[in-house]
Amino acid sequence: MPDNLEQRIRSSQLRDKITTATAAAAWIKDGMTIGMSGFTRAGDAKVVPLALAERARHEPLKVTLLTGASLGGEADRQLTEAGALVRRMPFQGDPTLRAAINSGEVMYVDQHLSETVEFLRSGQIAPVDVAIIEAIAITETGAIIPTTSVGNSASFAILADKVIVEINLAHALELEGLHDIFIPKRRPLREPVPLTKVSDRVGTTAIEIPAEKIVAIVITNQPDSTAANLPPDADTAAIAGHLVEFFKKEVAAGRLTERLMPLQAGIGTIANAVMSGLIDSPFKHLTMYSEVLQDSTFELFDAGKMDFASGSSITLSPRKAGEVFSNFSKYKDRLVLRPQEISNYPELVRRLGIIAINTALEADIYGNVNSTHVMGTNMMNGIGGSGDFARNAYLAVFATKSVAKGGKISSIVPMVAHTDHSSHDVDILVTEIGLADLRGLAPRERALAIINNCVAEPYKQMLQEYVAAANARGGQTPHILEKALSWHVNFLQHGSMLPAAVAADLMQAA
Amino acid sequence: MPDNLEQRIRSSQLRDKITTATAAAAWIKDGMTIGMSGFTRAGDAKVVPLALAERARHEPLKVTLLTGASLGGEADRQLTEAGALVRRMPFQGDPTLRAAINSGEVMYVDQHLSETVEFLRSGQIAPVDVAIIEAIAITETGAIIPTTSVGNSASFAILADKVIVEINLAHALELEGLHDIFIPKRRPLREPVPLTKVSDRVGTTAIEIPAEKIVAIVITNQPDSTAANLPPDADTAAIAGHLVEFFKKEVAAGRLTERLMPLQAGIGTIANAVMSGLIDSPFKHLTMYSEVLQDSTFELFDAGKMDFASGSSITLSPRKAGEVFSNFSKYKDRLVLRPQEISNYPELVRRLGIIAINTALEADIYGNVNSTHVMGTNMMNGIGGSGDFARNAYLAVFATKSVAKGGKISSIVPMVAHTDHSSHDVDILVTEIGLADLRGLAPRERALAIINNCVAEPYKQMLQEYVAAANARGGQTPHILEKALSWHVNFLQHGSMLPAAVAADLMQAA
Repeated sequence: MPDNLEQRIRSSQLRDKITTATAAAAWIKDGMTIGMSGFTRAGDAKVVPLALAERARHEPLKVTLLTGASLGGEADRQLTEAGALVRRMPFQGDPTLRAAINSGEVMYVDQHLSETVEFLRSGQIAPVDVAIIEAIAITETGAIIPTTSVGNSASFAILADKVIVEINLAHALELEGLHDIFIPKRRPLREPVPLTKVSDRVGTTAIEIPAEKIVAIVITNQPDSTAANLPPDADTAAIAGHLVEFFKKEVAAGRLTERLMPLQAGIGTIANAVMSGLIDSPFKHLTMYSEVLQDSTFELFDAGKMDFASGSSITLSPRKAGEVFSNFSKYKDRLVLRPQEISNYPELVRRLGIIAINTALEADIYGNVNSTHVMGTNMMNGIGGSGDFARNAYLAVFATKSVAKGGKISSIVPMVAHTDHSSHDVDILVTEIGLADLRGLAPRERALAIINNCVAEPYKQMLQEYVAAANARGGQTPHILEKALSWHVNFLQHGSMLPAAVAADLMQAA
Repeated sequence: MPDNLEQRIRSSQLRDKITTATAAAAWIKDGMTIGMSGFTRAGDAKVVPLALAERARHEPLKVTLLTGASLGGEADRQLTEAGALVRRMPFQGDPTLRAAINSGEVMYVDQHLSETVEFLRSGQIAPVDVAIIEAIAITETGAIIPTTSVGNSASFAILADKVIVEINLAHALELEGLHDIFIPKRRPLREPVPLTKVSDRVGTTAIEIPAEKIVAIVITNQPDSTAANLPPDADTAAIAGHLVEFFKKEVAAGRLTERLMPLQAGIGTIANAVMSGLIDSPFKHLTMYSEVLQDSTFELFDAGKMDFASGSSITLSPRKAGEVFSNFSKYKDRLVLRPQEISNYPELVRRLGIIAINTALEADIYGNVNSTHVMGTNMMNGIGGSGDFARNAYLAVFATKSVAKGGKISSIVPMVAHTDHSSHDVDILVTEIGLADLRGLAPRERALAIINNCVAEPYKQMLQEYVAAANARGGQTPHILEKALSWHVNFLQHGSMLPAAVAADLMQAA
């Protein structure tokens, strides 16, 4: 038992609920739906899911697992290996689970991150039986104070029959006050969310539920998994550079000020590197209204470039996590964490005028974007919040390296093999080669802009030839349908998007 | 000059601006961008665009034309034939223009209907030089009272340098008070739209601009073009029937009440027929928060089923137009017309919890929807508001007949050849065969639901075979990429999606 237990669980009655992970997991029965905290590896329940996986190795136990977004640690892996997952939503990022999803073992429902709790609240998907929520503390009245993410935790706890809380001593009590819990009313009684600036606080600092719903409390002491981002490289630096140049031109044209507009950046190496690229830019007083706050957010604070950041989670590298969480008071009054429904709420994305920067897995010559499916069929992670943001943003930017797998895959293809974002929702496409400004362009013009600015040889010439042949057939969005997916088919059949002849030529030249 | 000119133009100074269509059109110069009233054939400028087309036949004159949505009459045709259109956005529905778009002569920018004025307001597309707005009257201060649509007229008039008004005497002055003009502030100063019920009025009844911007006024007397909807048939009745049964189940499950939720219905035969199908349903006190109000809206009023309807235009059949506009006082207090930015505003679509019913050109087995491109390449009309609504709705329904061209085209295909709505945004797919409820399903489950419920033979068996082969390859969204678009290729090559052998068998059997 920790020294400051009375600070961590402020109701003596609730302190009687402290138990082991195994005993807590016993509240979960075969066939139940679980709502668990965790968003981009931050603030996930650390021990109860593992106890659940352990049980599933010995008895029939299959559950539906809902989270905020991706989990850290081993929860998804162990639950998958134990055969405990029958259904999973709305996002994941675990290799073992990914394989089980793609083999059809686990039914994976990839959803816009703002929408899962809308479906739950309106009874349009099966209700949450048990919520498992990581917290820094529980108040006198049973309100739950989250840790490094809010995600869907608030609505899971509110909508579940029973709530299990993991009090994680590895998160400092200093996080109290970081969160802003606002839950929209059920429709048709919904009102405007009264938020007009990224720094506005419109809710409570804890998740208020009846204390009697808390059936078990488990004490843990384990930091979050850290971010798995790769360091910036020449390509990501070039992408960042192109975007900074573009923003400068927008400022020069009077469309943006040096503050830009509130920034959203997707999870991962490229979006994080792009944000880091703003450190050496002329822009000032930046703000973020995003999902995940990564290293770059705090680098921008440290560089005096950023005024305020709103997110749904904080996910940092090991080094940055040490710096930030040991000096948290330095940042706390410039931060807020919100439910992902609110961080990604269409109303707010449109109102605030967000510049949304997300990563594309591939894009096509017309600017349709695939964010999720490798070769059109195999799930990588999920759409996440990219649709919530791109669809309603002031400016929707998608970034990708122009090639993958050492040049064997072109990220710009004739036709994407899976569409997550239609061309209507893609304003800017940027690769390390350059940036295509697609605003106000018709598809044939978009194709020119993308091929000329974003693609290197030999794919550039291949796309030029494709477009010439397609244009000869005509149409608003010309295609040679029998060849539109041939690059992907080439890759599946012989490991490269290049036709065998071109690949051989290149190999000879090299 | 009409008798009641002082009622129609209430400022004597502005009455001096009355001129001919030809003289008014002279304000428009080569290379300009024109913003014109008109939404789903309603409230479009009737004579100045034709005078412009006439001029373009004799002198170099190329313009960019922005409207609300589709125009009636001959404006798009004549401007196209005169070679006057270099660029057109955000929606159209004219066969001559469509051909010029698909041949690449006219650059067509297909946009979400809520977004065009956002791009204009933020300077992200070229500004409107001259607005041409149809009105029933101009007030003492120069405020413009629109006719049967609002569309983008308000923002065009506010943002343009110069405004030409067509006063159309064929629209009764009784329309005054119908409109609710609310213009969101520029970002980052945007505030919530204070609308929480479909009947709320939050703006003014006229478009307020400085009177001196009005450079010309033309008097016309010509009714709107009427709706081109086909009458309901057995298939559309079956689609409506499936949807009514689905809604009944939702009510029985406690997810909806007999009022349902505010309804949006796309333009056209199928959506109109579906709405008409609600006349013989148990639902009451219905409301609409939609773009276009069609015959079905007024049939539902007359049947005592509908309490209130909010739209951006009124587009009726010849018979219904006669009934409604000669008895307008009967309906007026249950109607409001708003700017399309507000009728389609993401904030309001999500807040109000809209049930969005739109037509699919084709859908695939995973529930991705193509709303725009025939065989993936040729533009039909445009995405219109379907994305604004589906993306943010309480429930997104897409309806289509299961086949087209006498069975030579299956509307349900292995993979859509163009994606406007990703599977994330498609909750219900309904054909005359049946309804697939896709909520909370993973892609493999979606495929089963769609194939089993929405498709008839021989396509049903063909899709079952496709899915079986695709599943054997694996993936979250299994596909045989080299065959995914083969149905479209078959159609392009021999006029049917059926393989030659199957088509021959069917012909023999018939």
